[in-house]
Amino acid sequence: LQRIDISGLTGSSTVLVGETIARLVDYAPADRTIVITDHKVEALYGRRFPPSPTIVIGSGEAAKNLDTVRHIYQRLLALEADRSSFVVAVGGGVVCDTVGFAASTFLRGIGCGFVASTLLAQVDASVGGKNGVNLDGYKNMVGVFNQPRFVICDLELLDTLPPEEVRCGLAEIVKHAAIADAALFRFLENHSAEVLALEPAVMERLVADSVRTKAAIVNRDEREAGERRKLNFGHTVGHALEKSGGLRHGEAVSRGMVAAAALSVKMGLLERGAADRLTALLQRLELPTGVWHAPQNILEALKHDKKREGDQLHFVLLESIGRAVIERVPIRAVEQFFTSR
Amino acid sequence: LQRIDISGLTGSSTVLVGETIARLVDYAPADRTIVITDHKVEALYGRRFPPSPTIVIGSGEAAKNLDTVRHIYQRLLALEADRSSFVVAVGGGVVCDTVGFAASTFLRGIGCGFVASTLLAQVDASVGGKNGVNLDGYKNMVGVFNQPRFVICDLELLDTLPPEEVRCGLAEIVKHAAIADAALFRFLENHSAEVLALEPAVMERLVADSVRTKAAIVNRDEREAGERRKLNFGHTVGHALEKSGGLRHGEAVSRGMVAAAALSVKMGLLERGAADRLTALLQRLELPTGVWHAPQNILEALKHDKKREGDQLHFVLLESIGRAVIERVPIRAVEQFFTSR
Repeated sequence: LQRIDISGLTGSSTVLVGETIARLVDYAPADRTIVITDHKVEALYGRRFPPSPTIVIGSGEAAKNLDTVRHIYQRLLALEADRSSFVVAVGGGVVCDTVGFAASTFLRGIGCGFVASTLLAQVDASVGGKNGVNLDGYKNMVGVFNQPRFVICDLELLDTLPPEEVRCGLAEIVKHAAIADAALFRFLENHSAEVLALEPAVMERLVADSVRTKAAIVNRDEREAGERRKLNFGHTVGHALEKSGGLRHGEAVSRGMVAAAALSVKMGLLERGAADRLTALLQRLELPTGVWHAPQNILEALKHDKKREGDQLHFVLLESIGRAVIERVPIRAVEQFFTSR
Repeated sequence: LQRIDISGLTGSSTVLVGETIARLVDYAPADRTIVITDHKVEALYGRRFPPSPTIVIGSGEAAKNLDTVRHIYQRLLALEADRSSFVVAVGGGVVCDTVGFAASTFLRGIGCGFVASTLLAQVDASVGGKNGVNLDGYKNMVGVFNQPRFVICDLELLDTLPPEEVRCGLAEIVKHAAIADAALFRFLENHSAEVLALEPAVMERLVADSVRTKAAIVNRDEREAGERRKLNFGHTVGHALEKSGGLRHGEAVSRGMVAAAALSVKMGLLERGAADRLTALLQRLELPTGVWHAPQNILEALKHDKKREGDQLHFVLLESIGRAVIERVPIRAVEQFFTSR
């Protein structure tokens, strides 16, 4: 069991890597807890939940919207939840993001904790206090910053995860390594087979190191005034790709990282060999690295990116493996880069 | 022009009593501002607005809901608002509460300021960083704490306010005096005629003193962990009355204050003479003080009150004019009090 602390403006959070859902009662007040999960997680693991009232929401990115948030509010109201109630989200990123937002706004904020059930949620969505939902197809347009009281990363829950979901989590782990942890990057290069086999000791290291990297960045810049933007490496193009359809988050981020690395090389910041290492690692982890299609869609989506300010985009680029920089890039230059490929 | 500063956990706010909407450009970034107002305010004062894009929402309590918030999000998206955009709410409490919540959650929070156009908004809704909307008829069930950058209290806008709206604001001013400012209470007792005539110098004192009282309490307890609950004086019963229909907020609070004072006397905290002074002042300001009807409705609504914890209610009672205390009162005792009258 590894504990990693994150301190945010509105409270602090403890990530517990290797803790199990069976011990949830040690962290949440038994008589005031309401569990919120999705249909899939409930079917797989409902019998391990504590005997608390449970709200079940739809699963998948399509459920991450304001209608689901309203449904949660209404169910909390029906359960007579009050300010002493405590919400526990059990699920992947969609559940944690949606429930985190609902809990942060119901009665102007009630306590909540997460049990992250997917690799992606364990290393990314559940760490750092960002929550929120999509709006009319645009990702994470609505939300707040608010730290959950705790995040349990139960590694046993990964056993039932489909391989494509595992790969989505691996994409974020590669991202953390690429922007801030060259040692973790080399570990991934040297242990890709064990990683793909979900070998327990290897997974614990990956999750804990990855959380630690993200936590260190969030501790220094919770509100994304500066350094935290590095965590968006691969996400600017990734989100645009995801929006234009057909790709999972991690797959989109994988391609987005390849694009951002190529842009880094083009702008003279990164050696081509380093970009090639990134592409090779992603391929070894069975993540897609191919050139995207439909650039017009992507450019349109980039204009709605939250990281846009006026006609510039904050783009996260690499200087080397393990070191990211944030550059303001004019949208026009991004357009030229994409259309000239 | 009187400036009153409020510092909250997520930022600080300056209330400008006596400033005018014509000088809004001095406070909001001209090229990044989006004004949000309601139909009525737009019709009356739209020509005084700065030349910014304007979003118009429905007016009245019925518009204070999640659908309106979603409409604002969608219009902001259509206007290509980004993190550097700045929202200015121009209107009464409904507009400030709804827009404040939308701005605090759009892109996880963009900057906002208020121009409070009603007396109630000037002395209450716009001060203190609470925002939010109603849910299925339950008041303020959804929201966050977030300070607006500034609040302009333009006293000229009060000229077009219907008398019943003026009285709603007066109820909150009486509340601030009753819980924390005996001098203001005496001033109100001695100047009720000038108050009802909206005499400018008298109104500036009322608004500024009232804001100062609320700001002092909010500065000490933004998150309503303790003292801030005093601002709920008259609101526990008031909200329940308002929900059971037909009463304006200020009218409901006026009756709620009479009820809370009676409960204070009943519990041996307050002298009957002080309760009588409160009733007399409210009557002189043409506010209703009569005994409520439909107690069963009220009791049902009290059970859904945000201030309930388990089977107790945090009730704000008076010890004297100018001094409030917070008591946990068992819901059963409240029931007995109401049904035995």
